[in-house]
Amino acid sequence: MENFVYYNPTEIYFGRGQEEKIGEIIKKHGVKKILFLYGRSSIKKIGLYDKVVKSLKEVKIEFIEHGGVKPNPILSHTLEGVRKAKEFGAEAILGVGGGSVVDEAKAIALGVIVGEEELWSYFRHEKEIKEALPVFDILTLAATGTEMNGNAVITHDETKEKLYISSPLLCPKASILNPELTFTVPKEYQAYAAVDVIAHVIELYFSSDYCPKIQARFIEGLIKTVMETTEAILENPKDYQARAEFMWASTLALNGLAQIGFKGGGFHNHLLAHAIGGLYDLPHGACLSIVIPAWMKWWCAKNPSPFERFAKEVFGLSKAEEGIEALKNWFKKIGSPTSFKEAGLDEKAVEETAKITVQIALVWGLEKYYNFETTKEILMKALS
Amino acid sequence: MENFVYYNPTEIYFGRGQEEKIGEIIKKHGVKKILFLYGRSSIKKIGLYDKVVKSLKEVKIEFIEHGGVKPNPILSHTLEGVRKAKEFGAEAILGVGGGSVVDEAKAIALGVIVGEEELWSYFRHEKEIKEALPVFDILTLAATGTEMNGNAVITHDETKEKLYISSPLLCPKASILNPELTFTVPKEYQAYAAVDVIAHVIELYFSSDYCPKIQARFIEGLIKTVMETTEAILENPKDYQARAEFMWASTLALNGLAQIGFKGGGFHNHLLAHAIGGLYDLPHGACLSIVIPAWMKWWCAKNPSPFERFAKEVFGLSKAEEGIEALKNWFKKIGSPTSFKEAGLDEKAVEETAKITVQIALVWGLEKYYNFETTKEILMKALS
Repeated sequence: MENFVYYNPTEIYFGRGQEEKIGEIIKKHGVKKILFLYGRSSIKKIGLYDKVVKSLKEVKIEFIEHGGVKPNPILSHTLEGVRKAKEFGAEAILGVGGGSVVDEAKAIALGVIVGEEELWSYFRHEKEIKEALPVFDILTLAATGTEMNGNAVITHDETKEKLYISSPLLCPKASILNPELTFTVPKEYQAYAAVDVIAHVIELYFSSDYCPKIQARFIEGLIKTVMETTEAILENPKDYQARAEFMWASTLALNGLAQIGFKGGGFHNHLLAHAIGGLYDLPHGACLSIVIPAWMKWWCAKNPSPFERFAKEVFGLSKAEEGIEALKNWFKKIGSPTSFKEAGLDEKAVEETAKITVQIALVWGLEKYYNFETTKEILMKALS
Repeated sequence: MENFVYYNPTEIYFGRGQEEKIGEIIKKHGVKKILFLYGRSSIKKIGLYDKVVKSLKEVKIEFIEHGGVKPNPILSHTLEGVRKAKEFGAEAILGVGGGSVVDEAKAIALGVIVGEEELWSYFRHEKEIKEALPVFDILTLAATGTEMNGNAVITHDETKEKLYISSPLLCPKASILNPELTFTVPKEYQAYAAVDVIAHVIELYFSSDYCPKIQARFIEGLIKTVMETTEAILENPKDYQARAEFMWASTLALNGLAQIGFKGGGFHNHLLAHAIGGLYDLPHGACLSIVIPAWMKWWCAKNPSPFERFAKEVFGLSKAEEGIEALKNWFKKIGSPTSFKEAGLDEKAVEETAKITVQIALVWGLEKYYNFETTKEILMKALS
């Protein structure tokens, strides 16, 4: 185990009916005026919008709304939210929706403090986050783990760079996780979510120089839970227990617990996936399932050991390559694309992705692995 | 998954050299005067006492010392600490030692607020904890998980009741976990610690009406890590990686993560072990290894299913009874007693234990399971 610091102050309210407490939870934190952020119409369709408004009004919390968060949230919409929040005098941001909404909530929470002009420089890691407004959320799509971490991902409208910020100051003060609120998540989004959760836990498992056994077991357990519950959910979208265990697995996958104690390692698959997602606005999980099998084959040649363990512990298979193939086939089975072509993209997209990858790699400190040639080589294996 | 609220605000500083930061960590929390609590001589022998004093003085934190915490901390010593802390004007309690020291630190932190007269009523769950001083700790023996939870166990000198308090307000503000500081833990204490950690995760795994699969996998992973690392530690007490993974497993075993989402269940083995420990001042883990096999056999007759899973997932065995026997044999192998006789106690001890169990069961809400006859019957199976 390498040295680490672990601190995660988010209060989690998990289960049926927890969303009804949102007003009192926000009030308990001394907040009286909020920006109420959401996506498009789904929270109205499932009656959640009304519940939230009722709960806020019950405790006299004033709010201004900012709807229209995109699935891959963009800077322009974020900055609009910053302006609204500042004008209104919002003391906190409440995000109700999927990971995209919660991420944009965090970005707005920072933007209110640092200003519209400066916000993107934080995503380029040119400045250190020192303060942000409190963030609260009610999650309607479990995938990114954002409800219990300090990360947020935003895409720059013009440059198409999909970058992240990360700070304990951005951990939500409280997050409400009611699996019932995920019942209407469409099947393909459940598939993309499953890929994202698995990706979160395999990044360091595979790319680190040393993976502690305690972490390997934790991660393998989460992967098996994700696979089992996803299949159950695709069978019956209203399977509460499956939705619940999937939701908690997705929170645990990126709340810091599966990222500590490793020696080295980085989010290589996310680097490549962000490049695709920023350019082509594909769902994040779909970008990941395109790159993961190709990346795994490439990295396995450098360090087969974790891939051998993975094949055995997760799939009961004896060879590293078999494990990679099994994971790829599982992605296909649940309906997430495993090639550029499957996602309607061609060789030109591979080239463009490689170019953006190199740019992002510099920001993320992974440039030694990903020059244009190498990146193109890896991604060509994911072309069809 | 049943509804739950999860909140754990402890900052964990894990790894080599982290103890040198104690002064700045306490200072960062705005604290200037502390009660410095510890056990007997071990922290001086390993040079930790000097490091702590140096670190506190470097940032001009004033402190008063209260040494002599017993392995099963007692109320009288706790109240003495409360008096010292109040007289000195301590703003926080720093516990440096094993779980006993950290528990007593939490009890003192509460006692300073509520007063010496009232403190024991909180252990009898007659009052609700509303406030406590901040607690900081440097852990020198990994077992109880107290470094990352709000629990504290104290024994009443006269009645011999070993009771607990539990509140998020008692979670340490920061805990320092350096595996090197556990290198000199004697082999039998490592054995008792291993039993305690396993006990923490099996309580709800076995006694709940429903154990979510995500929890079952998490728990089985932790048990395997505990077993593997304990054997390595008994071979080589200075195996850093083994000590490190064991330490983190012990933190994860009782920081709340392995206790959420279950339907029903209780800390049955701890109930019985507390009764023995309060009466005979045996190490907590030793009390647990005496009762666990007998309790498992008794409960398995009511609900064999989790015991079948346990046997298969942890030991690769096909029958529930075989799994129970395997665990009992493992306890023997590492040197923790599996009968009253092995611990030098006789049938009279069984009777006395049964009596106290009934009393504590009332405080813990487990009285419907444990009348005198039933308890004696279970414990007689652990006599020899």
